[in-house]
Amino acid sequence: MNIFNPYFDVIKKAIDSDPKSQQRMYGSQIDESQFDMSYVKNLSNQYPGVQQVNDTILLKKGFSSQDITPIPQLGNHPDFQHLRGTDNSEDHWIISGFIDLKESTKLFNRFTKATVSLITEGIVKASIFAVNYCGGYVQRIQGDGLMVYFGGKNIEKKTATEDALKAFAMISYFVKNDLRVYFEENNISEIYTRGGLDLGHSNQVRWIYSGIGNAGEITTCSLHTSLAPKMQAKASSNGIVVGQNIVNQLQQNNYFTSKKNPIWDYEDGRVYNHFDFNWEKYLVQTGVAVQDRFGAIILSLNFSRDQKQDFESLKPIAAQNKPYLSSNE
Amino acid sequence: MNIFNPYFDVIKKAIDSDPKSQQRMYGSQIDESQFDMSYVKNLSNQYPGVQQVNDTILLKKGFSSQDITPIPQLGNHPDFQHLRGTDNSEDHWIISGFIDLKESTKLFNRFTKATVSLITEGIVKASIFAVNYCGGYVQRIQGDGLMVYFGGKNIEKKTATEDALKAFAMISYFVKNDLRVYFEENNISEIYTRGGLDLGHSNQVRWIYSGIGNAGEITTCSLHTSLAPKMQAKASSNGIVVGQNIVNQLQQNNYFTSKKNPIWDYEDGRVYNHFDFNWEKYLVQTGVAVQDRFGAIILSLNFSRDQKQDFESLKPIAAQNKPYLSSNE
Repeated sequence: MNIFNPYFDVIKKAIDSDPKSQQRMYGSQIDESQFDMSYVKNLSNQYPGVQQVNDTILLKKGFSSQDITPIPQLGNHPDFQHLRGTDNSEDHWIISGFIDLKESTKLFNRFTKATVSLITEGIVKASIFAVNYCGGYVQRIQGDGLMVYFGGKNIEKKTATEDALKAFAMISYFVKNDLRVYFEENNISEIYTRGGLDLGHSNQVRWIYSGIGNAGEITTCSLHTSLAPKMQAKASSNGIVVGQNIVNQLQQNNYFTSKKNPIWDYEDGRVYNHFDFNWEKYLVQTGVAVQDRFGAIILSLNFSRDQKQDFESLKPIAAQNKPYLSSNE
Repeated sequence: MNIFNPYFDVIKKAIDSDPKSQQRMYGSQIDESQFDMSYVKNLSNQYPGVQQVNDTILLKKGFSSQDITPIPQLGNHPDFQHLRGTDNSEDHWIISGFIDLKESTKLFNRFTKATVSLITEGIVKASIFAVNYCGGYVQRIQGDGLMVYFGGKNIEKKTATEDALKAFAMISYFVKNDLRVYFEENNISEIYTRGGLDLGHSNQVRWIYSGIGNAGEITTCSLHTSLAPKMQAKASSNGIVVGQNIVNQLQQNNYFTSKKNPIWDYEDGRVYNHFDFNWEKYLVQTGVAVQDRFGAIILSLNFSRDQKQDFESLKPIAAQNKPYLSSNE
């Protein structure tokens, strides 16, 4: 029972209950207003609430901190709040990340819009959870995707980099494994994630308040914030692409494969490179996941106190088979 | 002096003051930290503030309403605030729109990041102004672009459609005319807008609160919200693409040219079409702009009380030459 199960369970129930999907074999055009939609309200209640999410994060921290800080508002990074509503700016490094679902629009052909919203909300909520769980900050919800930041004033660049890679790997895992298997069983055409991550150093990132009056957000102006979605667009299905600045943070960086052409040409002789990130290898070597005897990746982060126990029970199997087993375990 | 001049003026000053741009002819790699950046703070103060924006909108309304409603917060449509933080939903029609800048990342090669942020902020602020001026609502700032809604509970679909077309046309006008001419004079490679607009009817749009706790926004789940960015991606330079539902709202719709292939296949025999929107023709025929004797479009909306006077003085010239002159003027 992995950490994403509370989200996965509701998505499964939403699909199983969808009246349009059930009727599809009989009819052609369907009027959604005829359906009994009471199942939806019950299901949307079942997603973990903010309290449950905070509890999980607290559990991870081993109850070391009793002050639960609620998940902060969008567009309002806690370390740069002094910029809100002002014309001021501050230069400070940050990791910008974009991740979203591809082909999710096809869900509208198959399901009622209520079910579509339950599915995409489940994935968005699971992603918000993963980002916060790993110490990141959700800047913006973009329909079926997120823009996020990792970093701030009280964290090391290297730690923030590891957090960002872990969070994006976890989200990719959820969609590529748990969800995909269930979608395939239900003949739902492939839905996949694409992610892009890049780090801008302090001389490369300008924090400002963008907008007019209340209609604004605290945000960054940086080549590297602009490159992150371009990297995302270069990612393969369920892939994550990262910039050179990210790669440079990791000493032992056998997780990255350089892309053929640079992502950016400064037009002064320099270029900037981007890399495919082998997140499955990263999850296993950092102990977030294990591989079973068939090589499949199994997330070893659990909600329950039995987490360590589950992990211990899988480890002997994994040790015999997995090519990615970290040397220090 | 058109309505966008307060934004254009600051952008021009930012470009003229940029130290990196001035040094470009002499040096190769440049360390931005060596520059005197005091010009930036002075310039960012010069963009119209929320008060000035509200005054302009009030002026347009002919002082009929004395209660200035401040520009509302992002992700918080005023007519659906009751959904905030809840699991509830509501079905209600809306027009979803996406507009952003293309090739703006290239600005980082030429200017300091402070100047880049002044330029993109100028365009974002001008766009927020145009959307609010035309009665729309800014849902989200996406770097150098906006996601917006037009419509709500106290407006007719047809009016909201006209408002949306007008706002997007005005933004496109600003970037294609005022800015482009100045950029060309300064050898700045082309920057252009792309826009996408689609209408979802009430049985096609589900309003929900998306996210967890405070990290959320009031948003729509709809095929037509999902299609709007796909239409945007099909737009040509400075183009706007709209869906069939938008076209159907206008009686006299000689502004739209159907795209060859449908934007959506429902996979049940039906398809959904999208159209190129001739926004220059629309601006002229609705009286928002006039054409000079050379056929160039001139926005006739002004900040000053002389607006009507300016318009009257241009009209005779325009009447002799412009092919788009509306018959009812």
